[in-house]
Formats: sequence, C-alpha cells, structure tokens
Amino acid sequence: MSTLLLSYQDLQQLVRRVGIDRFMDELIERLTSALSAFDPEETEIPLRAGFHYERPVTGLIEWMPLLKRQDSVLMKVVGYHPNSPLTLQMPTILSVFSKYDPATGHLEAVVDGTFMTAVRTGAASAVASRVLAKSGSRRLGLIGCGAQAVTQLHALSRTFEFEKVLIHDSDPTAMQSFPARVAAFVDRRTGVHEASLERVVGESDILCVATSIGIGEGPVFGELPRLPWLHVNAVGSDFPGKVELPVTLLRESLVCADTLEQARKEGECQQLVPDEIGPDLVELVRGHERYASFRDQPTVFDSTGWALQDHVALELMLGYAAEYALGSTIQIESMTRDPKDPYEFLDAADETASRLGTAS
Amino acid sequence: MSTLLLSYQDLQQLVRRVGIDRFMDELIERLTSALSAFDPEETEIPLRAGFHYERPVTGLIEWMPLLKRQDSVLMKVVGYHPNSPLTLQMPTILSVFSKYDPATGHLEAVVDGTFMTAVRTGAASAVASRVLAKSGSRRLGLIGCGAQAVTQLHALSRTFEFEKVLIHDSDPTAMQSFPARVAAFVDRRTGVHEASLERVVGESDILCVATSIGIGEGPVFGELPRLPWLHVNAVGSDFPGKVELPVTLLRESLVCADTLEQARKEGECQQLVPDEIGPDLVELVRGHERYASFRDQPTVFDSTGWALQDHVALELMLGYAAEYALGSTIQIESMTRDPKDPYEFLDAADETASRLGTAS
Repeated sequence: MSTLLLSYQDLQQLVRRVGIDRFMDELIERLTSALSAFDPEETEIPLRAGFHYERPVTGLIEWMPLLKRQDSVLMKVVGYHPNSPLTLQMPTILSVFSKYDPATGHLEAVVDGTFMTAVRTGAASAVASRVLAKSGSRRLGLIGCGAQAVTQLHALSRTFEFEKVLIHDSDPTAMQSFPARVAAFVDRRTGVHEASLERVVGESDILCVATSIGIGEGPVFGELPRLPWLHVNAVGSDFPGKVELPVTLLRESLVCADTLEQARKEGECQQLVPDEIGPDLVELVRGHERYASFRDQPTVFDSTGWALQDHVALELMLGYAAEYALGSTIQIESMTRDPKDPYEFLDAADETASRLGTAS
Repeated sequence: MSTLLLSYQDLQQLVRRVGIDRFMDELIERLTSALSAFDPEETEIPLRAGFHYERPVTGLIEWMPLLKRQDSVLMKVVGYHPNSPLTLQMPTILSVFSKYDPATGHLEAVVDGTFMTAVRTGAASAVASRVLAKSGSRRLGLIGCGAQAVTQLHALSRTFEFEKVLIHDSDPTAMQSFPARVAAFVDRRTGVHEASLERVVGESDILCVATSIGIGEGPVFGELPRLPWLHVNAVGSDFPGKVELPVTLLRESLVCADTLEQARKEGECQQLVPDEIGPDLVELVRGHERYASFRDQPTVFDSTGWALQDHVALELMLGYAAEYALGSTIQIESMTRDPKDPYEFLDAADETASRLGTAS
C-alpha cells in the first residue's frame, strides 16, 4: 500500500500546467457544488482544535479533520505564526494535508496545504460574493495587503470585472509591493491604488478584510461612511478575541458565516447573538435565489475557514496529479503480510530497489 | 525546508541494524525517563478524538496530538479496523506519525506509526510491570494472541525471565501460529503452551489481556481463582463500553492507568469510581520505591495508549535514522521566498533535479 506524495516541485509543475486561473475557476465551481450537495450525515466536520502558545514563539498549530464516508478522511494541520515573515522570512501560514482511507486507516496522500489554504479562502469569498454582492460590482477594497489579499483579489477578479482596486495596509511596504504581486490577474486598465481607510471603506462595492490585528485590538476600522450595498468578506478573524469589523456594521448587515459554530467562537460572529446571524454558507448557496434580494443591502461573509473547502481543493489537485501523472509514491506503513505479527516485516525480503516510485 | 520520510524499507533496515532487542531495551529505558521527567507545563497532551463509524466498515480513525514546547508537535493518526485481518489481510491497527516544528508549523518528518504503536504498547507494560509485578515472576499469561501479544511478550521477556508462557485465544489458529511469531525472543527452554482461560488466569504471575472483544461483550473472563500477587496488563480496552477484566478483579487490585482521564473514558477504569483508581503511570514511575510494596498484592495496569509513549518511540527512531543516515527528504510545503505572495513559487526557477534527496 503506497502513499502519494506531491512535492513542492510537483505542485509547481501542476499549477503551471493547469494554469492558476483555470484552477481558481474550477475550485469556485466545485466548492459551489460541494456546498450545495453537503450532507452532514455523509460528511462529518468536527470543530478544529489546536495548540496555542506563547513559547517558543507566539503561534498555533491546529488540526482540521473531515470524514467523508465511503471516500476519505482529511487531516489538515495548519500552523499560524504571525512573526514568521519578519523573523524568519517564512509564511505566516504553513499547512500540510494528509488523506486517509476510512476503510483501512491507510495514509493515501500527503500534499502541501499552504497553497491550497490560500486559494480556497479566496474561492470561498468568491462563492459568497457571487450571491450577496451587488451585481456588476466595479470597485474592490482590500484592507490588509498580505498573502490572503492576493487570493481574495484573484478569486473575486474571476467573478467580477473590477474597474478599480483600493488597498490599505498599516505597513506601507506591504501596500507598495502589492501591485507586483497581483499583476498577473489585474487587468492593466484596472488601477491598484493605495488609499486611506476612509476611502477604501467608503468607495468599495466589495471589501475584503484580512489583517494580522492582535487579539483584543480590533476592530480595524470604526464608524465610517459606506455604500448601502457594501458586501464585506471578513477573512482575518479566526481566533477568540480577534475581530476586524465594527459591530455596528455587522448589526446592519446580513451576516453569513462559513460554518456557524466556529464563527461564533472565532469569527466576527463572536460579536453577535444568534438572532443577529443569517444563513451559513451551505444555506446561502442552496438558497441563492432567495438571498439575491440582499444584493442591494449591506452583507458580510464571516470567513473562518472550513475543512470542506480544503477537501474540495485537495481532491481537485489530486485529480490533476493523476491527469498529469505527477507525484511520487512511497510505502510508509510497516504493513506486514501477517497482520498478527508486527515484526514480520523484519524478515521480509530486502527491497533494495529505489524507495520511491512515480505516481503514473 | 525539507521533510524527512522514513519508508517501510528504511524502517526495516533501521530495526535490523539496531536489533529489535536493543530497540526495545532503549525504548523501555527512555520511556521510564520521560515519565519520570514529565512536566505538564512543557508537554501538553489533549485527549485523543476521532471518527467512529459503521460505514463503509466498522472502524475508527483517531488523532493523538502532543506538544512539547521548544521541541516538537507530534500528530499521530491511528486507524483501528477490526475486520481488516479477515477481509483484507491487513493489520487491525495502521498508524502514521507526523512531526511539526512549533516555531514555524513546518512538517519535519513523516514516519510509520504502526510498528512503533505496537512496540511502545509493549514497553509501557514492561515499565508498569517492573514496578508492580512480583519480583522474579516466572509465569506469563497471554489472553488474546494477536499482534499486541507479540510485543507484550517481547517487552516483558526483556524485563523478566519467564519459565513458562501460557496462551489463550478464542481463535485456535491464532494460538497455533503464536509460537512461531515469538520464537526470536522466547528462550528455547521456555515453553509456550496453549491453555484454558482457567489455567492462564490461575497460574500466571503476570497476565496480559489484549483481545478484540466487542463493545458491551466484556469481560473476557469472570470470577476465576488467581495467584494473590497477580499483575495484569490490560491492553485491549480502549473504547467506551469495551472492557476485558471483571470488575471484582479491578476492585481487589491497585489499578494504575497510563493516563487517568482517558482510562476513565475508554479503559478498564470505566468500571471504577475515582476512589478505586490508584496512581497514573507518571506517579507510579516517580514513586516506584513506594509502590514496590504492592508486588505481593494484586495490581492492574490499565493501558489505553498515550501520545507520550509515541513521542518517545518516534524520537528514538529518528535518532537511529540520523545515526545510520537512512531516510529520504522531500520539500512538501509551497514555501515562497515572499511570504506575502502565495503564488510566488510558480515563478521560481524550475528544479528539475531529483525531487528526493537522502537524509544524510
């Protein structure tokens, strides 16, 4: 029984061959379908749990499991270490996906989750915005110009035709480097403009907020004028005590959480009582015709990150890996011919051939 | 940042070079030291959680996380599928260990956990038996002759000199194949004898119970005469409703749980109230001089499996892998040079060289 490994280089080749736009488009469509078809009897997604610590550095390592019966168990492990970019030139978020066979417990695949976490978070905002944002939205605002802003802009630019992108970050270097990071998917006619918080909030049809604001230090902005149909994708709030949006904005808006229980614990919904919270993402997608009436009203998508999104992204990537025959295989588990003898493999014939095969 | 992989073949080479007896001896010593030094401020071990299902087959997949600050995060994923040996000729237990760096979230190593789960469970019984079993115990009883019985016998035979091993299994073929499976570490003068439940329980100084009895179908034996100093290692009880020992035996014995909260939920301690439960394994090892007074009295080690044991086994194996320069490395995470750009790696120079390096 072998385990498929996709290396960094495999992932690089795969995404280059598929094309990042096609990957994003298919992810958005598949996520929409998966949300529409979601059946909690068949797909079990417990709340994520994790280690949160201040030593050796401030950070957390969380695990996000998912069971899809008759199909797979996904174990996503994700690290969030906000000082990594500054102190180590490493990403804030690092993640690996492991996929298991629920019929045997066998580890079927180990794949990078860092890239897919970034992309699926963008895709989720596109799914929510397609239902809730004003039709023909032309102005996108981004507060926080880090890694998440890149995939937010990418995903939304596959769904809307923006004429103007307004950006704001408390770190001027993040703003300055942003246009180069998104040049591949921003039309040359679309300007990317640095702007004050007031302008970004006040002029946007759609606003994405993805900052590293500290626990207890939010919201990122206060009472500011905004367009009556503003749709906000609130991405950064993902920890108890961390919020980005003013509660007044939330109370005036239809608030959709990606997954309710987690959003109430870690998302913007921490600031609300249950009566103030609208549909979750599954309900939103299923009732998209009904919820389209909110396109002219203020709406918020409270995005805390859900393992269903990761599952969809992983399956899409594994499909491409099979199509392009990329990846390596390795036998990790000490599978013995005699299941009653854990030492039997020590007597098995030597296998001195190359330890790694190709996936094709 | 690379990830170390130990393949099945690497593990085979490593254990052959080290020798299974030396591996077991060092594991028992290191486990004793780790228990003695255990500091819950430095090592955080949440209760395991998991998916338990009846479809597609009866089984469970659990995750057992451990954080050792300044050192590592261990994520053990373990599958338990009791029908696998019969229907698929695969082991009941399959497991993989993943090790992460708590400073960054980086995946440092992926290693088989199946072999180490079996071995560390034996080692834990040896640690407990060394404190609690009668000095100079000569007769070992084994109820259940599956994979767990092999490592129980191995570990205990490194700690005691047995003159006689009595075995019992409800499946005659398991009994018949057992002597061949343990021939490497049973002295030729020591006989391995099939016996009735009555004889195994009645004649043993140390008894290990490791069966696949169903939930609600225990105990495995009832009121039977036994030696007044009988020490039992109760290994099979690891699920709510699954117990192997009669409550009368437990009530007459000093009961030591590997980890109390889990044993009360899943182990033999389900049958007891807190006042009836003795020290946990950490306390037992620290107070071994005090608890030695119980060697002439009935005692039980309630072994449900604890991530600390896995951590010790993994570190021991990784140390050998470094010493013998075995293993492969792979870069899994899409680590970008620019932590604010999740797509940056797509533009990085091609790396067409072999994707896998050696660990040396």
